[in-house]
Amino acid sequence: MSDPTDPRLEIGSVLRARFDGRGWRLADDEVACEEPLAIELHGEPLAVLMRTPGHDEELALGLLLTEGVVSSAADLASLHRESVARGDAAEENVLRAILRPGLVPDLGRLRRNLYASSSCGVCGKTTLEGTLQAAPPLTDAARFPAAYFAPLAERMGSAQRAFARSGGLHAAALFAPQGELLVAREDVGRHNAVDKVIGWALRAGRLPLAGHVLLVSGRVSFEIVQKALASRIPVVAAVSAPSSLAIALAGRARMALVAFLRGGSFNVYGERRRVEGAE
Amino acid sequence: MSDPTDPRLEIGSVLRARFDGRGWRLADDEVACEEPLAIELHGEPLAVLMRTPGHDEELALGLLLTEGVVSSAADLASLHRESVARGDAAEENVLRAILRPGLVPDLGRLRRNLYASSSCGVCGKTTLEGTLQAAPPLTDAARFPAAYFAPLAERMGSAQRAFARSGGLHAAALFAPQGELLVAREDVGRHNAVDKVIGWALRAGRLPLAGHVLLVSGRVSFEIVQKALASRIPVVAAVSAPSSLAIALAGRARMALVAFLRGGSFNVYGERRRVEGAE
Repeated sequence: MSDPTDPRLEIGSVLRARFDGRGWRLADDEVACEEPLAIELHGEPLAVLMRTPGHDEELALGLLLTEGVVSSAADLASLHRESVARGDAAEENVLRAILRPGLVPDLGRLRRNLYASSSCGVCGKTTLEGTLQAAPPLTDAARFPAAYFAPLAERMGSAQRAFARSGGLHAAALFAPQGELLVAREDVGRHNAVDKVIGWALRAGRLPLAGHVLLVSGRVSFEIVQKALASRIPVVAAVSAPSSLAIALAGRARMALVAFLRGGSFNVYGERRRVEGAE
Repeated sequence: MSDPTDPRLEIGSVLRARFDGRGWRLADDEVACEEPLAIELHGEPLAVLMRTPGHDEELALGLLLTEGVVSSAADLASLHRESVARGDAAEENVLRAILRPGLVPDLGRLRRNLYASSSCGVCGKTTLEGTLQAAPPLTDAARFPAAYFAPLAERMGSAQRAFARSGGLHAAALFAPQGELLVAREDVGRHNAVDKVIGWALRAGRLPLAGHVLLVSGRVSFEIVQKALASRIPVVAAVSAPSSLAIALAGRARMALVAFLRGGSFNVYGERRRVEGAE
C-alpha cells in the first residue's frame, strides 16, 4: 500500500523499551503515524480528522461524498493543500475544498452530522430513517457465489505493508465484480481507511460502485455501512463482527454484510440473497 | 461486565446465515448493540454518540470530564434521561445535563472540540500544545514493577462477558495501585468504553486517578491518552499498538504507555521511568 506518488509518512520510528517476561531491551520501533488533517469548505472549517498521513485528497473526497456534499468528482471545483505556519511548526495539514459554481453547502447541517457521528436523530429508528432519506436503498441485483469471499482478506493483506499486517493500522479495500483488488488503503482510523478507498473510486470515475465489494479489516459499525451505501456498494465484508445498527441499516438498504471472514468461513447478515446459498 | 443495576441491552439477537467453507446453516446470533445517545447541556445539543446502551450516565459524565466541562461530580447539578417520542418510536436515548450555578459552558468551543476529535489546531505540534494547556503534564511520581502488568489483561477478560471476549465490543478497565480491578466497561466505541470507566471513577469520588492504570483492549490513539491525562492517570496499557501522536503526547505529559501487552511481555513508550527497569 506504499504509494510512490504519495511520499507522506505512514509510519514513524520511536524509541521504546521491551520486556519479554524476563529482561529488558531498548530499541527503535515502527509506529503508525497519526496527525490531524483540517478540511475547509469554502473557507470555513468543516472537520479535523485524526488520520494517518498519505492519500489525504482521497480522504477528503471520500468524506465529502459520504457526507452528501458532492456526488461526483465534477462537483468539486478545487481541492488544494495549504501550508500553515504556527509558532515554529510549519506543516501541510489543511485541505481547502471549493465546490463548482451553483453548489452551495449547508455548513451548519454538515458540521452537525460530523460531530454527531450519525446522520440525524436520537433513536436508532430515526437514525435509520434519516440515513435512508439521504441515500435510498439499493436497487441493483448483484449476487456473489460464496467462493468469492474466501480469498479477499489474503488479497488485501498482500497489498498491505508488513507493519500494517502486524496490527498498527486499519485497512479497507475495494474489489471488482470478479474479485480483483482495485485499491487498498490504511489508516489509524477505520472510517478514514474507508473514505480513502471511496475517494479513490470517486477520483477514478468509478461511482456508483454497484457490483463491487468493500472489505474492512476490523468491525462493521453503522457508519461503515452508511459510507458504503452513499457510494452504492452492495456488499460490505469484514474480518470481525458487525454491530446491531450496522445490520439493521444493511437490511433496510438491501445491502449484505459478510462478517467474521476467516479462512473460507463467514456469516451473512442483512440482504442475505446477495450471497448465493445464504437465503 | 453485566451490571444488575443497569438493565439496558448490551447485546441483541439477529438471524444470520453461516458458511463454513462447505455448507450453510441459518441460526440466531448475538451481536453488539449500537445506538445513538444524544447528550444535551443546558438544553443545547452537545454530542450524539454511537454507543452500546448501558452505563449511559457514566458515559456522559466521563465525556463531560474529559472535554473539560466539569472537573468533579459537584460541578454537575443534574443529569437526567429524557423520553423522546418520534413517529412510532419512543426511546430513552437523550441525557440532559445541567451544571452547578455559576459554571457556564463554552458550547461553541465544546462542539468544535467534539466534531474535530482533537483539542485544537491543525498540526501535530499545535494539537499537543493545546492539549497540554487544557490538561498540564502529570507531576506525580508513581512507578510500577514490570510484574504489575502481566495479569491485567486476564483480569479484565474475566470481568467481560463471553460474547465481548469473542470480539464484538471494545473494553476498558481501571486498576488500583496494587493491581486490583476496580471497574471494566464495554462498548462498540473504544472512546466510549474509556469515558464510561472515567465517568464511573468521577461518580465514585476517585478523581484524580494518580497511581492508577487504565487498560484498553485495542490500540492507543491520541484521544485515549488525552482522556487519561484529563483524569490524571499516569500509565495507559493496551493489548495492541500505540499511534505516533499518542506516544508524543504521553512523552510530553509524563505518562507511560504500555503496549502490545500479551502474556507477560510488552513495550513501554513515553515516560518509561514509570515502569521499573524500562528507563
